[in-house]
Amino acid sequence: MPAAARETANSRTRLLTATIDLVRAHGYAATRVDDVCAAAGVTKGSFFHHFASKEDLAIEAARQWDQGASHLFSLAEYHRQPDALDRLLGYVAYRKELIAGDIREWSCYAGTTIQEVHETSPAIREACAVSIENHLLFLRAMIEDVLREYPAGVTADSLATFMQAVVQGAFVMAKARQDRQAALDSIDHLYRHVEMLFPRSTSKKRRKPR
Amino acid sequence: MPAAARETANSRTRLLTATIDLVRAHGYAATRVDDVCAAAGVTKGSFFHHFASKEDLAIEAARQWDQGASHLFSLAEYHRQPDALDRLLGYVAYRKELIAGDIREWSCYAGTTIQEVHETSPAIREACAVSIENHLLFLRAMIEDVLREYPAGVTADSLATFMQAVVQGAFVMAKARQDRQAALDSIDHLYRHVEMLFPRSTSKKRRKPR
Repeated sequence: MPAAARETANSRTRLLTATIDLVRAHGYAATRVDDVCAAAGVTKGSFFHHFASKEDLAIEAARQWDQGASHLFSLAEYHRQPDALDRLLGYVAYRKELIAGDIREWSCYAGTTIQEVHETSPAIREACAVSIENHLLFLRAMIEDVLREYPAGVTADSLATFMQAVVQGAFVMAKARQDRQAALDSIDHLYRHVEMLFPRSTSKKRRKPR
Repeated sequence: MPAAARETANSRTRLLTATIDLVRAHGYAATRVDDVCAAAGVTKGSFFHHFASKEDLAIEAARQWDQGASHLFSLAEYHRQPDALDRLLGYVAYRKELIAGDIREWSCYAGTTIQEVHETSPAIREACAVSIENHLLFLRAMIEDVLREYPAGVTADSLATFMQAVVQGAFVMAKARQDRQAALDSIDHLYRHVEMLFPRSTSKKRRKPR
């Protein structure tokens, strides 16, 4: 890639990354294009070269968020576990590992943005919802694997929704209490929920991926 | 109360109610004082008679929200159940009943506002957090009653936080999917979680308050 094209790609990525950071910290409406440009070290002229509007920027940021999340979760260690239930519990344990540093670093761009713009910007809500739906698809596939081996009276869809709700709610509680422990406690209960829902037969050796 | 004083009290209450409605629909930053006045049918002069600023309004709205929630949950039917576990399950079933109508009608003013202003307005976050803490206290007391009769390896504090996280996350998921079923599914799983956590001895007659 020629240097100029690389610089253009870089400034676009920097603008998207700055948007994700600032919206998670300040919300969508309170985040100004000027602040995004300043954080990204990009001129406003360059901004309008890449994005038609602040709404367009937020939509593209949702796509970048989605790609980043897909990449992160698909490459994670727990996929190597041979047992489906170990993989699902490993996923929950990994969600807990990700809760480190400032809240703005580990909360969800898609969830917080939907919370705010669900009525005011259907286009942004939709782009963020795609990211959440993709994660639900990923979770559903893991849960379907578990249900084949450990039958339980739940659907993969409803359990995936619940698991995602716990994670989203854990972020809200950590923001309310200004303490990541609230999020960690919530995810510990989710881990226990999965364990209780799919009790292992006593013949199987139980492994704790946590 | 003289008519003029009653009218003053009414306009204050109308402004707070309009704030709760508008912020749940549009978020805090996007809600303008002019919109609140128009929705409440109150002049801007009257607004500034009651509130020093939009931030002051949002703080007072959090207090009104807290009082409304305390009133609603303390008077609910499930408190009449003689068994502590029936009361806790009755609470969860009641949370489900409350999910009716438009999302803006049943989502949480405190949770959605904290999600947005957690870094930008510590004073509003604090007022909303008080409302959430009061609900956690109320939940903890119910859970402590259950733990005395049905011991389980959890603390009342962590379970209360988890239950509140599920409810907050259920709202986010319903907004993402534009479907209240996502919230209902999440709360069904919470019901099941409480049932699994506190298995009744077979000698006790099992009642389903749902």
